[in-house]
Amino acid sequence: MRIAVVGTGLIGSSLGLAWRAAGHTVSGCDNDARALEAALARGAFDRAVTLNEARGADALVLAVPLDVTCALLAQLRDDGQSNPAVMLDVASLQEPVLQAAAGLPGFVATHPMAGREGNGAAAADAAIFRDQSWIYEPGDGAAQATVLGLIAQTGAVPIPLPAALHDRAVALTSHVPQLLAIALAHCVRRHADEEGVRSVVGPGLAGALRLARARWTMWGPLIAAERARDAELLEELAAELGALANLLRQGELASARAAFEDAAPAVADIFRYAKGNQGGQDSR
Amino acid sequence: MRIAVVGTGLIGSSLGLAWRAAGHTVSGCDNDARALEAALARGAFDRAVTLNEARGADALVLAVPLDVTCALLAQLRDDGQSNPAVMLDVASLQEPVLQAAAGLPGFVATHPMAGREGNGAAAADAAIFRDQSWIYEPGDGAAQATVLGLIAQTGAVPIPLPAALHDRAVALTSHVPQLLAIALAHCVRRHADEEGVRSVVGPGLAGALRLARARWTMWGPLIAAERARDAELLEELAAELGALANLLRQGELASARAAFEDAAPAVADIFRYAKGNQGGQDSR
Repeated sequence: MRIAVVGTGLIGSSLGLAWRAAGHTVSGCDNDARALEAALARGAFDRAVTLNEARGADALVLAVPLDVTCALLAQLRDDGQSNPAVMLDVASLQEPVLQAAAGLPGFVATHPMAGREGNGAAAADAAIFRDQSWIYEPGDGAAQATVLGLIAQTGAVPIPLPAALHDRAVALTSHVPQLLAIALAHCVRRHADEEGVRSVVGPGLAGALRLARARWTMWGPLIAAERARDAELLEELAAELGALANLLRQGELASARAAFEDAAPAVADIFRYAKGNQGGQDSR
Repeated sequence: MRIAVVGTGLIGSSLGLAWRAAGHTVSGCDNDARALEAALARGAFDRAVTLNEARGADALVLAVPLDVTCALLAQLRDDGQSNPAVMLDVASLQEPVLQAAAGLPGFVATHPMAGREGNGAAAADAAIFRDQSWIYEPGDGAAQATVLGLIAQTGAVPIPLPAALHDRAVALTSHVPQLLAIALAHCVRRHADEEGVRSVVGPGLAGALRLARARWTMWGPLIAAERARDAELLEELAAELGALANLLRQGELASARAAFEDAAPAVADIFRYAKGNQGGQDSR
């Protein structure tokens, strides 16, 4: 199949690698000439194409931030030119995407639960999709079967989930950890010049701050779209932290111990159905 | 050198591997027969010894939880039997350890900033110390030079830091991320049965929850000892989250963007002097 991917960042380039490995011809399209060049150098794509050329492929994949995804979908629907029979996006929210794509035949909204350290094609890796959930908006269009096949070829597990449920759930599982890392970064930064702090940064802190280097370009539109739910969950977590702080202040160590010991089974439970994501633990 | 390690968990066994690789003869001691057996099976030690036999080594290393470390130090000092010329601990707080060891010649309080996923000897890895900070209480004892040599042989970077500064700093860099993962686990668990949540758990959440499987056996005494400072910092982080929530609620996205974009340089700054811990980022 001839697949065109618009957006040659980490996800777009990782998809290029995965689908090329599966035998497809994959072209890459990007406004950012340097990003495109890096993706070609990484071997993520067979060749570079313009958006118009991309629209001549068998399948068109939008791997760009949410706001760009929505703008492109409106363009594809409204500019009167012809489009591939199969189109999908990989943005991390589905309601805004479905709204922007309303009336565009052949489009399936999807979201691979995949990522890794690093940005751009340099960090691309075909393996990031393996055994991960790849959510799609269930529908009955003929394009859906093709999309499910493409998902399966990356090693991901396609999971149907209606947009409203998806978007509410990712606020919890994706936006909250992201915003938490940002808040922690500021909290640690505020104390970073105190003597000794920089000497005692270890792998635990590094892991907790891993997400704090993510890009606003990608995250801004997502957070803007879900800001009410995100705020609600952050407040809930703030209350949880306050309660834990209070246990410590009061010396209620039996309760602190219970909170601690209940966490491991909670994590195991949360990841019960996830194949690739068993959260490990760290001894310090 | 003949080294004896008391405690054959993740850190003790990783030390056994590292020092055996450096040419030392390393024996392991553990009350838990299964843990000891696993460590020998892992190749972490040349042989198993009793505590009394361990005290006949050239260097004695305590790699047990803080409360056990303190109890052992009091025993070593007070029971009238002879001890090695060089002793060190690897517990994560230094003031309680120094207090327990007061008057015990040859003892150096230390803390390697090392860890990894998993528990016990099965997860042991000689490489976890490489390029990490290894804090020690500066002193002028003859034992210190030997301890610095042993630290260097693991690939870690010895860093002198007085106990009070160390303990205050690790509350921030180690206890806070740990307690945060516990709080997040409970927050996510509370929503885990909502439709779709388990389908959208990805690598970002898994990373944020990685520490939540740590053991109270190790953490309880640390948190108990630093509970006032831990509580203070958790409240500070709760306030940070509340402020971020408020920005989102008010739609102050320019400020949210600034918080986001300031985080990456803050993380880079925090890890400026750390060799092995550059916090990466994840695109989703």
